[in-house]
Amino acid sequence: MKNIIKQYTAGKDFKIKDQSTRISDELPPEDAKKELKKIRKKIAEIQDKMYAHDQYSVLICLQGMDTAGKDSLIREVFKAFNVRGVVVESFKTPTEKELQHDYLWRHEIKLPEKGKFAVFNRTHYENVLVTRVHPSYLLNENIPKLKNPAKISENFWKTRFAQINNFEKRLVQNGTIVLKFFLNLSKEEQKNRLLSRLEEEDKNWKFSPGDLKERALWDKYMFCYEEAIQNCNSKEAPWFIIPADDKANARLLVAQIIYESLSLFKDIEYPEMSPEVEEHKRKYKEQLEAE
Amino acid sequence: MKNIIKQYTAGKDFKIKDQSTRISDELPPEDAKKELKKIRKKIAEIQDKMYAHDQYSVLICLQGMDTAGKDSLIREVFKAFNVRGVVVESFKTPTEKELQHDYLWRHEIKLPEKGKFAVFNRTHYENVLVTRVHPSYLLNENIPKLKNPAKISENFWKTRFAQINNFEKRLVQNGTIVLKFFLNLSKEEQKNRLLSRLEEEDKNWKFSPGDLKERALWDKYMFCYEEAIQNCNSKEAPWFIIPADDKANARLLVAQIIYESLSLFKDIEYPEMSPEVEEHKRKYKEQLEAE
Repeated sequence: MKNIIKQYTAGKDFKIKDQSTRISDELPPEDAKKELKKIRKKIAEIQDKMYAHDQYSVLICLQGMDTAGKDSLIREVFKAFNVRGVVVESFKTPTEKELQHDYLWRHEIKLPEKGKFAVFNRTHYENVLVTRVHPSYLLNENIPKLKNPAKISENFWKTRFAQINNFEKRLVQNGTIVLKFFLNLSKEEQKNRLLSRLEEEDKNWKFSPGDLKERALWDKYMFCYEEAIQNCNSKEAPWFIIPADDKANARLLVAQIIYESLSLFKDIEYPEMSPEVEEHKRKYKEQLEAE
Repeated sequence: MKNIIKQYTAGKDFKIKDQSTRISDELPPEDAKKELKKIRKKIAEIQDKMYAHDQYSVLICLQGMDTAGKDSLIREVFKAFNVRGVVVESFKTPTEKELQHDYLWRHEIKLPEKGKFAVFNRTHYENVLVTRVHPSYLLNENIPKLKNPAKISENFWKTRFAQINNFEKRLVQNGTIVLKFFLNLSKEEQKNRLLSRLEEEDKNWKFSPGDLKERALWDKYMFCYEEAIQNCNSKEAPWFIIPADDKANARLLVAQIIYESLSLFKDIEYPEMSPEVEEHKRKYKEQLEAE
């Protein structure tokens, strides 16, 4: 299974059109669910060790178009987790307060603490995705000298890519394990899922008219995803391209990649007793027993 | 089972010495685990509705002496939760920054968002527990005119109780469901658990010499717990007294109380489609199907 990391990492010449939105050797959904159950328990065991070890943290980044299955993936993949050690951050439209800082600030302040996981449901990449599709959003950011978003150069985005790369590099260098997943959904499957949101009573509330407006911009989004992934993919903070048309298999694959990636960190172990406690262990025991 | 809420709510004349640290009709641990599995799924269903409903939030407060089982309770009771909708906040020694605000501030900023759960592992009550046992800690809080903690009057603590009551009242009035649990452990069982932390290799790292120092102050702690619970118990934000000498039964009981308490909120339901979407539903479907 080790090869799963290699197999699904975005290559250097990553093109979305070359990527299948279904896994070639996918399992029947029921089997995928059973496998996921096993693997999420194993990830939870690493989580427990990592919490005690208290030196690494993990940042899971999830990106994908509307209905790609980000929310339900979070629910299923992290189901065996100790809730103590994981925080899910959903990044929506920036608030007034957030806009008083640069675009990375609101992501900085939500980074995981030592020993913990953070799952970013939509991430700092939105700043080179939704913002690039709608450059007028940049006006909300009060960037010096930026008056006409229509005139924004290629270079502006290249600069952001470099900033994002430096941001992630610093995290990795200081003990954060960064894993980025693009849930690659086909346009056809999105249509099915939007229709079912409209048709099924208990899914109605999830539908927003804005979903159709963004869908109309599908090709622009794909261009921006491609550029972002090409420019911000590194060995240290890799992008994984997850075929997302089948939810059960997509979840299993993400879990497998998380498990394999974390397994590479052999030094994540329960800490030893502090030297002070070790020295006084007998004394403490005697003290308790003599009460 | 409805009576479970009444049965374990702290009474008006609550005295710790009258409370058993074991449940009278406790289940064999294996049975308690099985029951917990069922009930935590039911709580998770309410959690899902609550997230979509987006009007209430839930604050679970956990207090208890060292080794009372707070951490493992969190792990087990919330295991079926969608991690997206729950945040666990562990309050340790206040930081320099936190001490630049009043004692409730650091709890305020960690309150749950609409639709979400927060679990406070140790809570704002530490300010009338550990701080009352060690009044010198108050000097770190830079309180005007407070110079000699030895001279602190009863009234000082009564004022804090009133402040805490007002804080919780406001939360409840604005849609936060507040449930407070005191894990009532016997001094004898704490001894067993501390010894096993010292004896079992994989538990060693959890032991801290400070645990023994606080244990020596057991009676003072019990006095402070009793006062806090007597003074800050209300129908709106009740204290539940959980016999904690058996972990499996304690966890089950907490889960049952959470489930029963949330079940009283009959209005927590999946939201209906927005009127705008409802009106245009057919148009949206046609638009998608015509692509």
